[in-house]
Amino acid sequence: MILAATLSEERFALAVVIAQLALVYLTALLGGECCRRLRIPSLLGELLGGILIGVSGLRWIVLPVATQDSSVLVNWVGWLHGTSEPEVIRQVFQFQGDFFQSLAAVGITVLLFEIGLGSTLNQLLLNRSQAIAVAGVGVLLSMLGGTLGLNAFWQVPLVPALFMGAALSATSLGITVQLLRQQGRYADAETQVILGAALLDDVAGVILLSLILGFAREGEFSSLAILRLLTVITVAIAIAIIFGRSLGPALLSLQNQLTTRGRVIVPAVMLMFLFVVLATTAQLAGIFGAFMAGLVVQGSSKRHIAESLRPVVDAFVPIFFVYVGAGTNLRLLGQSPQSGVLVVFLVLVAIAAKLASGYAVSRHEGVNPLVVGLGMIPRGEVGLVFAELGRSTGILSPQLGLALVLVSIATTLVTSLGFRFLPKLPYCDLSSRAVMRN
Amino acid sequence: MILAATLSEERFALAVVIAQLALVYLTALLGGECCRRLRIPSLLGELLGGILIGVSGLRWIVLPVATQDSSVLVNWVGWLHGTSEPEVIRQVFQFQGDFFQSLAAVGITVLLFEIGLGSTLNQLLLNRSQAIAVAGVGVLLSMLGGTLGLNAFWQVPLVPALFMGAALSATSLGITVQLLRQQGRYADAETQVILGAALLDDVAGVILLSLILGFAREGEFSSLAILRLLTVITVAIAIAIIFGRSLGPALLSLQNQLTTRGRVIVPAVMLMFLFVVLATTAQLAGIFGAFMAGLVVQGSSKRHIAESLRPVVDAFVPIFFVYVGAGTNLRLLGQSPQSGVLVVFLVLVAIAAKLASGYAVSRHEGVNPLVVGLGMIPRGEVGLVFAELGRSTGILSPQLGLALVLVSIATTLVTSLGFRFLPKLPYCDLSSRAVMRN
Repeated sequence: MILAATLSEERFALAVVIAQLALVYLTALLGGECCRRLRIPSLLGELLGGILIGVSGLRWIVLPVATQDSSVLVNWVGWLHGTSEPEVIRQVFQFQGDFFQSLAAVGITVLLFEIGLGSTLNQLLLNRSQAIAVAGVGVLLSMLGGTLGLNAFWQVPLVPALFMGAALSATSLGITVQLLRQQGRYADAETQVILGAALLDDVAGVILLSLILGFAREGEFSSLAILRLLTVITVAIAIAIIFGRSLGPALLSLQNQLTTRGRVIVPAVMLMFLFVVLATTAQLAGIFGAFMAGLVVQGSSKRHIAESLRPVVDAFVPIFFVYVGAGTNLRLLGQSPQSGVLVVFLVLVAIAAKLASGYAVSRHEGVNPLVVGLGMIPRGEVGLVFAELGRSTGILSPQLGLALVLVSIATTLVTSLGFRFLPKLPYCDLSSRAVMRN
Repeated sequence: MILAATLSEERFALAVVIAQLALVYLTALLGGECCRRLRIPSLLGELLGGILIGVSGLRWIVLPVATQDSSVLVNWVGWLHGTSEPEVIRQVFQFQGDFFQSLAAVGITVLLFEIGLGSTLNQLLLNRSQAIAVAGVGVLLSMLGGTLGLNAFWQVPLVPALFMGAALSATSLGITVQLLRQQGRYADAETQVILGAALLDDVAGVILLSLILGFAREGEFSSLAILRLLTVITVAIAIAIIFGRSLGPALLSLQNQLTTRGRVIVPAVMLMFLFVVLATTAQLAGIFGAFMAGLVVQGSSKRHIAESLRPVVDAFVPIFFVYVGAGTNLRLLGQSPQSGVLVVFLVLVAIAAKLASGYAVSRHEGVNPLVVGLGMIPRGEVGLVFAELGRSTGILSPQLGLALVLVSIATTLVTSLGFRFLPKLPYCDLSSRAVMRN
C-alpha cells in the first residue's frame, strides 16, 4: 500500500475515510433539509453545504491542489490518532482527495444513468414540433451567447469556449420535473413541452460534450474527426434503441430469477456498466454510456429499475454534489475584477437564452411562453457535471469551472423563485385551464 | 492529486475504480446466488467468488503487496485506455488497492453495526444461565486450544496466539440465525440458548480484541494497562446502555421530522459514527464502537433502524467479503508443509470447542446439546473481521490470517451441512417437541 509505510498510517487513513464519509453525508442531509424547507431543490443545499465545509468555507474537507497541504478534518483525525509528522499528514491528505474524487466519479455515472431512466422517448414524440423548436432555440442561443461572448470579451480559446457554450445549453430535466411537481403543474400543457425540450437538450448536451472531449483529445478540428464521432454516436444511439426494447424485460426476468439481496440493484448497475464500457471503447465519454443505458430501457421496467437504483443514487450522488461544493473556490472571484463580471454575464446569457426559447412556441398553441421559458432555465446537476468534467479533463480553467457552478446555482434559484411568484403575474393564472383540460 | 501527473492518468484511475466496483458486485451477486441455491450462507459465495477473482485465482483483482506490480483488471483497463507505461500502471494499481481497502473498512464497520443491531440484550436475559454456561465453555476451550496449541506446537508468539484464540472464540450470530431460520427451527428452545450464547461470545470476542490490540500497541502486558482497558470498556458499555434506552426513540423522531431522501439512512449512520469516534477516542477499536452503537438501541426502533440500514449494508458489506477473498493467498499453504497441518488443527479446535460447549447444558433442561453445539460452530463473518484486523494491524502473519479465513469457511460449511442431516440422526427429531410447545 502507498500509505502503509507504517501500519498506524494505514489506520489513520482509514479513520479519515470513515470520518469524511460521515461528514459528507451529514452535510448533504442538513443542506438538503434546509433547502427542502425553503421549497428550493435539495441539490442546492448539498452543493452549498459542500461550499460551507470546503475550501471556500471551514476547510474541513479540502481537495489536494497545488497550494494546500492539509485539511482541518485530516489534521483533526491525525490529532486524535496522535499523528503529526507533516509527511504522513500530506500523504493521507492526498489519499483522501483521490478517494473522495473516485466516489464522486461513481456518483456522476450513477446520476447520468438516473437522468436517462427519468427520460422517455415518448415524452419527446408527444409534442414533437414544440419541443424541437424550444430546445433548438435554447441550445442555439446558449451556445452562441456563451461561446462567442467568452471568446470575444474574455479571449477564452475556442475549445473551452465551446465547452462552456455546450454546458450552458443543457437544461436539468430532474430539477425542472421536481419544481413543476412541487407547483402542482405536472399535467399542464407547458410541462409536456418543457419535458420534451429538456430531454432533447440533454441528448444534445451529452453529444456536444462527447464531440468537444474528442476534439480536446485529438487537438484539432478536422472534418473527418467530426464525421467519425458523429457516426459513432449515431450508431451507438441506434444500437442502444434497438437493443433497449428487449433489455428492460430481460433485466426484470433476471431479477425475478435471482434470490440474493443484491438481485435488484446489481443487474441494473451491470447494465449501466456495460454501456459505460461500450462508450469508453468507442472513445466516447463514459457518462454518455450511462445516460444511454438509462434512456434505452423501455416500458414499465424503466420505473422499476429507477426504483431499484434508488439506494445507489442515495449513496453516491450526494457525494458528488458535496464534492463539487467542497472544491468550489469562491476566492477566485476576488482574484481578478473580471471574474465577477464574467459570472454575471454567463448567468444573464443562461437565463435570457432559455426565457427566449419559450417564445419559440406561440401562445395560441395553448401554452404560456413565459412558463415554458422559466421551466427551461435551471441547469442544476447537468451544469455541475459539465463543471467537474471540465476540471478533471483540464479543459476549463478554475475560473470558468467556478462560473459554471455559480450559473447552476443561480439558474436553479431563479426558476424556483420564479415558479413561486408566477401565479401572481398577469396572464399567468393557468390553474383554471389545467383543470378544464383534465 | 497523486495520480494526476497527467489528466489521462486520472481518468484511467477512475475507469479502474468503476470497473472494479462493477466486478466486485457481480462477483458477490453470482457467488451469493450459487450458495443460496445450494442452501449454504451466501457470504461463503461472496468470499469464494473473491478467492476466484483474486490473487489465488484469476488475478483480476490483486491487492498491492511486495511481490505484485499489477492486476489483470488494471492492465486490461489500461489497454482499453491505451496506457502501458509501467510507472502509470503501478501507481494506478497502488491506488485501486488503497481505494478497495478503504471501502472494505467501511464495510467492516457497517457489518459490526448490523451485528449489534441484530442482537438484543433481552435474548441474553431470557436463558441467562444456559447462555452463560455455553458461551463460557466455548470461549474458554477455543482460547485454550487455539492459544496454547499455536504457542506450543508452532512457536507462535503470545500476542498473535492470543489474537487467534480470541478469533476462534466468537460465534457468528448472523450465520447461526440464518441457518436456524432456514431449517424452520427459529422457535426451538435450542435456538434461544444459541442466540444468547452467541451474543455473549460476540461481546467477549470484541472485548478480547480491544484488549489484544491495546497490548499490541503498548507492547507490554502490564496489569495496570489491563485494568485501565477493562475500566474503559466497562464504562463505555455502561454509558452505552444508559443512553441507549432513549437513543432509539430520539432517532426515530428525528427521522420523522426530516423530509429529504437521506432522512432514514443518514441519522442511523451518524449514530454509528458517533460511537466509532467515542471508541477511537477511548483508544478502543472503532468496530467495538460500531457494535455497541447497534447493541444499545432498544425496543422497536432497533428493527426499524436495521431495515433503514439495509441499502448501506448491501452496498458495502459485499465489498468487504470479496476483498477478504481476493486477498486470500491459497499458495501460502504450499509454501511450508506445516501450514496445512496448522489449518486442520485450528479447524478441529474450532469445531470441537463449540460442540463441547453444547454439553454445558444438560439434556433434561429441555434442549438437545448436539443442536446447541452445532449452532455455535460457525465463525462466519466474525472470523473474517478478525482476519482482516490481524492483517491490517500486522499482528497476524499471512499464514495465520489465511488459516482464520479457512476456519471461517470450514466451520460455516460444517454447520450448514450438519443442520441439513441432523433430523436424520437419532435423538434429534425436535420438530414434534417444538410443535407441542407452541
